[in-house]
Amino acid sequence: MRYKITVEYDGTDILGWQRQLDGPSVQEYLENALNFLAEAGGGKNSDAASELNTELTAQASAPHRLIGIQGAGRTDAGVHALGQVAHFDLERNIADWKLREALNFYLREQNAPVAVLAAEAVDDSFNARFSAKGRGYVYRILNRRSPSVLLKNRVWWVPVPLDVEKMRQGAAFLLGRHDFSSFRAAACQAKSPVKTLDRLDIATSGEEIIFTVEAKSFLHHQVRNMVGTLKLAGDGHLRPEDIKTILELRDRKAAGPTAPACGLYLSKVWY
Amino acid sequence: MRYKITVEYDGTDILGWQRQLDGPSVQEYLENALNFLAEAGGGKNSDAASELNTELTAQASAPHRLIGIQGAGRTDAGVHALGQVAHFDLERNIADWKLREALNFYLREQNAPVAVLAAEAVDDSFNARFSAKGRGYVYRILNRRSPSVLLKNRVWWVPVPLDVEKMRQGAAFLLGRHDFSSFRAAACQAKSPVKTLDRLDIATSGEEIIFTVEAKSFLHHQVRNMVGTLKLAGDGHLRPEDIKTILELRDRKAAGPTAPACGLYLSKVWY
Repeated sequence: MRYKITVEYDGTDILGWQRQLDGPSVQEYLENALNFLAEAGGGKNSDAASELNTELTAQASAPHRLIGIQGAGRTDAGVHALGQVAHFDLERNIADWKLREALNFYLREQNAPVAVLAAEAVDDSFNARFSAKGRGYVYRILNRRSPSVLLKNRVWWVPVPLDVEKMRQGAAFLLGRHDFSSFRAAACQAKSPVKTLDRLDIATSGEEIIFTVEAKSFLHHQVRNMVGTLKLAGDGHLRPEDIKTILELRDRKAAGPTAPACGLYLSKVWY
Repeated sequence: MRYKITVEYDGTDILGWQRQLDGPSVQEYLENALNFLAEAGGGKNSDAASELNTELTAQASAPHRLIGIQGAGRTDAGVHALGQVAHFDLERNIADWKLREALNFYLREQNAPVAVLAAEAVDDSFNARFSAKGRGYVYRILNRRSPSVLLKNRVWWVPVPLDVEKMRQGAAFLLGRHDFSSFRAAACQAKSPVKTLDRLDIATSGEEIIFTVEAKSFLHHQVRNMVGTLKLAGDGHLRPEDIKTILELRDRKAAGPTAPACGLYLSKVWY
């Protein structure tokens, strides 16, 4: 049986989505939770988890099964998720709620900064990465003179005043299908720098400036590079129309710096 | 000169507002910052702070001046503030922005979970505690099945569904002038248990239930005890009209448990 899960995480103290040798990742926490579940066990305190353990143990062919998980998109160290999606296979049918509760139980046992929001059985043809029709990100800037301790690692703190209207004017040049080489990380592995940006809205909420960005897929660092460049239109270092020129130059050096990871959230993936 | 400051803090890793012998407090962080400022120094990297230092040092009568600070209200360990107010005296006139920047510089040097949002010179008769005309608190419940890692220590996570309308019906009985003994901590030092509750609104925002509570002043634990009891009206353990009975019994044992500190924010104080 194939399962789809929707996942929230705090990226602050992890190396990102993908499993790494030198530190914790979301993938590692989730795969550990799945393998704890699948292992022969018992003596656990969660009813859902222990019931599920019993079910799984009853037909487990080996004591240590290694279950792999694939995510819709890799997020970098420090980047958060409100709705990352992933899939994996288990040998048998488990009720959605039971799987969600059991995974959350094992995630909490690991003190993981990861929570499962939803779990559901899906068709075997479902692939979290390749079936995705679109991805949505949110980027949060806190624009005020004083730093925030309550939003530490949750926003990019920009103490100089930003002109939101000028950022919106600049953002308009990025909408649609373009060669986004100017906003592409050197390490990007995409075959083509051409992407179609479906949405780039900039809203305000109290002292926050919130970017909502949607596309079928993105280049590596594309959202953070666009935000870092639009910020320069907001603080007066660039004119809004400079964003058009920067895009046309297809040169990473023409654009602004990469905005910090801590303001970025993978908010949703749709299929 | 007397100064008024407005302060944000993350209460998670501190013992509360008031200075304690066995761990950090907001008062200690702020008094340390003020005394760093007033001490002879230099070699600091913040322009505002070092300029201020020079000014202060030029007329300091002793190398270590102990400046005390008084807050509008004491908050307990784990309780946050979006707008705590405090006052203190300095020997001379300092521009508001310079004082705010310098304090934030020294708070960051201490890695304090405290930030100064505003600073202003006020009349000598101003007293953060006794001049206050009212205090506002916000209490945040996250009401969903899955825990949240991004809102850890920022909300009370309640996984069972809560009926907001029933909580509102119960809350209505608490508005106005009453003897709040049923919602008063044993350690409360107030002379009288009679308080006037001016506002107790319950709103929803996504998966959150947000209480907005206002009064001239509160008993110790009053907000958390009211929220902890109203939650029982929301999950069906109490009927809304039971809140009236509990209030009339004037007995702490009649009410529900104290809601966790991490959901509570001192949001504003007005004068």
